[in-house]
Amino acid sequence: MGDIKAMDKLMDKFRSRKDELYKQKEEGKKVFGLFCSFVPIELVLAADSIPVGLCGGKDSTIPAAEEDLPRNICPLIKSSYGFKKTKACPYFEAADIVVGETTCDAKKKMFELLEKFVPMHVMQIPHFKDEKSFKLWLSEVEEFKELVEKSTGNKITDDKLKESIDKVNKMRKLFYKIYELRAKDPSPIKGADALKLFQFAYLLDVNDTIAILEELVEELKERVANNKGHKGKRILISGCPMVAGNSKVVDLIEECGGIVVGEESCTGTRQFENLVEGYTVEDLARRYFNITCALAFKNDNRIKRIKELVKELNVEGVVYYSLQYCHTFNVEGVRVEEELKKEGIPIIRIETDYSESDKEQLKTRLEAFIEMI
Amino acid sequence: MGDIKAMDKLMDKFRSRKDELYKQKEEGKKVFGLFCSFVPIELVLAADSIPVGLCGGKDSTIPAAEEDLPRNICPLIKSSYGFKKTKACPYFEAADIVVGETTCDAKKKMFELLEKFVPMHVMQIPHFKDEKSFKLWLSEVEEFKELVEKSTGNKITDDKLKESIDKVNKMRKLFYKIYELRAKDPSPIKGADALKLFQFAYLLDVNDTIAILEELVEELKERVANNKGHKGKRILISGCPMVAGNSKVVDLIEECGGIVVGEESCTGTRQFENLVEGYTVEDLARRYFNITCALAFKNDNRIKRIKELVKELNVEGVVYYSLQYCHTFNVEGVRVEEELKKEGIPIIRIETDYSESDKEQLKTRLEAFIEMI
Ligand code: SF4
Ligand code: SF4
Ligand code: SF4
Ligand code: SF4
Repeated sequence: MGDIKAMDKLMDKFRSRKDELYKQKEEGKKVFGLFCSFVPIELVLAADSIPVGLCGGKDSTIPAAEEDLPRNICPLIKSSYGFKKTKACPYFEAADIVVGETTCDAKKKMFELLEKFVPMHVMQIPHFKDEKSFKLWLSEVEEFKELVEKSTGNKITDDKLKESIDKVNKMRKLFYKIYELRAKDPSPIKGADALKLFQFAYLLDVNDTIAILEELVEELKERVANNKGHKGKRILISGCPMVAGNSKVVDLIEECGGIVVGEESCTGTRQFENLVEGYTVEDLARRYFNITCALAFKNDNRIKRIKELVKELNVEGVVYYSLQYCHTFNVEGVRVEEELKKEGIPIIRIETDYSESDKEQLKTRLEAFIEMI
Repeated sequence: MGDIKAMDKLMDKFRSRKDELYKQKEEGKKVFGLFCSFVPIELVLAADSIPVGLCGGKDSTIPAAEEDLPRNICPLIKSSYGFKKTKACPYFEAADIVVGETTCDAKKKMFELLEKFVPMHVMQIPHFKDEKSFKLWLSEVEEFKELVEKSTGNKITDDKLKESIDKVNKMRKLFYKIYELRAKDPSPIKGADALKLFQFAYLLDVNDTIAILEELVEELKERVANNKGHKGKRILISGCPMVAGNSKVVDLIEECGGIVVGEESCTGTRQFENLVEGYTVEDLARRYFNITCALAFKNDNRIKRIKELVKELNVEGVVYYSLQYCHTFNVEGVRVEEELKKEGIPIIRIETDYSESDKEQLKTRLEAFIEMI
């Protein structure tokens, strides 16, 4: 259908993933449901188990969630809770255990309610990036390792861990390559397709993701060599994740003459950047500790990274994207805007949810922004 | 003016406090501005310095804050930021250093912006209540001690610390006594007056607060002996702090035939409950670590304590109070409601801000609740 074959393959894999997952479950594999990029999937994989991302990206389950939860919390949280409550997500239903974390106020407290529906384990992510906080995080990762071993009955040996670290690093390196190729003008892949990659990477078997990414890299190289691709105002999206079901803003940008060339996001750079630099649990914990989520107090590395991405990807404008009521990204946006403006980088800040109701208004703003830059 | 003399004295002290504070500053004392019950004031006092609470309770400074901050964050945060931005609060202007903490997403991130206006020190409050988290907290308290010593030039000796621990404990015990007296029917003091006590205790010299509380205890004892006081449906307020400038909900309750007999709040029980049980920095850190703020994941002790307070204070109904967009208290309210309903304790959950616009609607809801119980 599309002009990139690997994307068709991705869609095929996605369509068959659900059945495959249930088959693996029947064969005795445990499924770990995850909500955040901070959870080290290497430990799950090393115990011959399956990590799946469960963040909800759809409006449809929000009304059910709003029967229990306050309305004015982030749509991702409500959608996720609603999926479990209404049993509407096969991946959520497949999860033997759900791993939460303390990334933000509303998610942290939502997990207390989710425990009614499913066994949970919650990891504490510290607020600070200092060494004391790393120690706490390391012990959280060690505890998680024990939990995985206990709940699967599989020992995470050094060899197993090394294997899974290498595997996930391999996936990360492929994403890096794709970013290198997207730095070209024209960009060989649309932002809408790139987003699907990131979204489905949370759901597919990591071996399948790697195979698809390898094919994709070759295809994109060829497209670049042939000068094939998408021209338009080059946009970096920066902010909250856009999980499966939610592609509103990318779609709008690309309808308005923009082309998304990068995502500073947990469906984007935060999902793959920084390799695990060694094979110990501490090396693993360190990689995750360095994630530049807005949850961190004095998150200067994030701002630095956004500026770098603007240069690396030849970005002409940044769309700063917050989900509604996401205080951390929303307030951090104030500083990001200040810092980018200092360097003359155009930025527009938008805050939106999963509904269709603000689409026209958003489109008008994005059009004006894209025209202006 | 009022029928309780100690309350008049409180108002007098409050009126003269500003000038006195500036005088103490001129004499070389340092002023520490605080935003949260988690900051151990004993360390500030032990260094011959002055702690003052800076949480904003007024609508008037919010428009200025909303020029910088997102609108949809808690009014306390916006009001506080606005006070500093517009230099409208003499206490804020007096502060030589402001001590923040990582209690909630929006406040944590607001502090990053506040640093432009005033020197800041931010303490990390962990999300969990386990021993690993206590260790982290202990080291935060130790660091704070060093900071206080460094920025004041005063050494916090064991003797000094003992003295300040005893002093603050003494104040706490007096608040406990007042709660015992409020358990009587009629309650010897109105909720509106009790709230002032808690609000001004964050601003006054602790010695003055102690003197006033001592007088008040005697007066209230007398009133109880004479069966003097306030009758009405006995209400416990539970939730977010109501800092100076904000008494909307207490006023409404008491206009509708309720009498507030307790506050499970940081302008209430969380301000004084649990003594420091020893004289080491660790003892001190432990007392603060045990504060039952909704920020904690699995905050069961808070729910337990609310139930106890209902019994101890002969409460007939609980008004669960969240500031708008305060996710932690708002979502925890779901569990609090569930748990209280299980025991047949009437509860109404309200979410409000500092504006006057929802007053009529709130009044209608509170009237109906108070009539029903
Ligand atoms: S944005 Fe932050 S909280 Fe959300 S998935 Fe990424 S790291 Fe986790
Ligand atoms: S988008 Fe923001 S509010 Fe929503 S779950 Fe992620 S960090 Fe929390
Ligand atoms: S409610 Fe929580 S965050 Fe607010 S002052 Fe109290 S302890 Fe601090
Ligand atoms: S009331 Fe809630 S949102 Fe506001 S500062 Fe306190 S904890 Fe944060």
